[in-house]
Amino acid sequence: MIAVDWGTTNRRAYALDSMGRVTRRFTDARGVLAVEAANFPAAVAELRSEVGNLSMFLAGMVGSNRGWVEVPYVQCPASVETILDGLVHVTDEDAVIVPGVIQPGDEPDVMRGEEVQFLGAVAAGLASPETGACHPGTHAKWARMSGGAITGFRTVMTGELFALLRRHSILSPQLDTPVTAGDAFRSGVRRSLDRAELSADLFGVRARGLTGALADAEASSYASGLLIGADVRVGLTFLQHTQPVALIGDAKLTALYAAALEVAGCSSREIDGETAFLAGIKAIAERMR
Amino acid sequence: MIAVDWGTTNRRAYALDSMGRVTRRFTDARGVLAVEAANFPAAVAELRSEVGNLSMFLAGMVGSNRGWVEVPYVQCPASVETILDGLVHVTDEDAVIVPGVIQPGDEPDVMRGEEVQFLGAVAAGLASPETGACHPGTHAKWARMSGGAITGFRTVMTGELFALLRRHSILSPQLDTPVTAGDAFRSGVRRSLDRAELSADLFGVRARGLTGALADAEASSYASGLLIGADVRVGLTFLQHTQPVALIGDAKLTALYAAALEVAGCSSREIDGETAFLAGIKAIAERMR
Repeated sequence: MIAVDWGTTNRRAYALDSMGRVTRRFTDARGVLAVEAANFPAAVAELRSEVGNLSMFLAGMVGSNRGWVEVPYVQCPASVETILDGLVHVTDEDAVIVPGVIQPGDEPDVMRGEEVQFLGAVAAGLASPETGACHPGTHAKWARMSGGAITGFRTVMTGELFALLRRHSILSPQLDTPVTAGDAFRSGVRRSLDRAELSADLFGVRARGLTGALADAEASSYASGLLIGADVRVGLTFLQHTQPVALIGDAKLTALYAAALEVAGCSSREIDGETAFLAGIKAIAERMR
Repeated sequence: MIAVDWGTTNRRAYALDSMGRVTRRFTDARGVLAVEAANFPAAVAELRSEVGNLSMFLAGMVGSNRGWVEVPYVQCPASVETILDGLVHVTDEDAVIVPGVIQPGDEPDVMRGEEVQFLGAVAAGLASPETGACHPGTHAKWARMSGGAITGFRTVMTGELFALLRRHSILSPQLDTPVTAGDAFRSGVRRSLDRAELSADLFGVRARGLTGALADAEASSYASGLLIGADVRVGLTFLQHTQPVALIGDAKLTALYAAALEVAGCSSREIDGETAFLAGIKAIAERMR
């Protein structure tokens, strides 16, 4: 079978053998925003030509109103069984699209794609069925999990805000160096944990640059620390400080969040997002049989 | 004389008669970022041809390292006298450039241009010499004033963040309507006052849009309320809740901040920014004689 993680800006496809091992992988930048609505069948065919003509499981923004087929969200609490009930079969194409998850009520929130990783991390035994979890990224997701299901979650716009500031803001000239989890990063994290004044503290990056209090080489890390610190503050409030936090995703990002959680006095466990994704798709596929 | 408020994106020039009345005004979009370093003399000559060949007083980013002549900041506490000590005379051009103000120390901060309006509001008797003041804008400034001097200030990146979100973010499609100070705005303000979780609550604009909890027509106002609410929270903490707050600037913006301050239970007084600017320049010019 083929497992596809098709997001807003990228897509990743994996061919899996009957033992669940990856036999082929393919990644490119044809996220849903780069594909015209009418061109999804061709974009799917392209994936098949790259990784093999097999049954396909797709997750992520491909199931949104900007994707191939709009798949209604399933509600929290969301387990593998809940996801199974919400699968949409594109029978002509031998493809199945995984629904995203919605949290209804006073604090509405949505995710598409991360649910597979949260559920997969538990299915693979990498995270406890009773845990607080975080998936950092463009829109970081903090999830409460109980009985292996996602019972509630909260999204923080951390990665997108950092990208906006880096590309388009008055801070752009200061933010062109890579982020590292050193002293400048930790100092930004501490600042945001101590006082939730993000929109003011971001201007502080410029003021500190002008006064020489912050070297240009450290500005990216400090600004990232401010944003991730604010994120962790929201996340730990949401998770009511349960630890360790299961940090699922790209290794560079989980390392930054692990460092930020450490500043907050909270333990974490880093889990590879690709491993969690594939375990989640396998758990869904197995129960379909 | 001519008074010029020359900012990053716009410039405004006023010819004043001996009684201080405006006899001519000129505004265009040739802010400092739109003028090459070598072209400032020509850009100044252009202003003279528009409003008259008189002694010129300039304030704002025109005195920055991206402006005509870099004018060192003066330090807090900054009164009209402090500004006088920091004036830079461009003698060949019969022009004087007003310095910006720097707050040194652990909480470095900078302003260029707003100081004229803060000091001018007091000079004109529109604000008390002992007051908390706010100048909303791209980079909102909250200032503590004592004895008519700016004793400390804090900048919040509110206007710039709103512009980034409106132009370049996932929220862009929702943010194309004008902001009004109605229920949606107030509800955003209240949210940010109650819980300082701005980077999470901004994603809530999207989640609420998807669930139908927030109509598209209200999304701009709600998002603006979130940002201005976070700003007011920072500002009131900084001012230690002294009131009324002198709100100085563009009438549309001061009205939004007045509404947000009201939600926070704080009184304010709106002061026209142009009036304050001209009063500030006159106060400086009078003491030069």
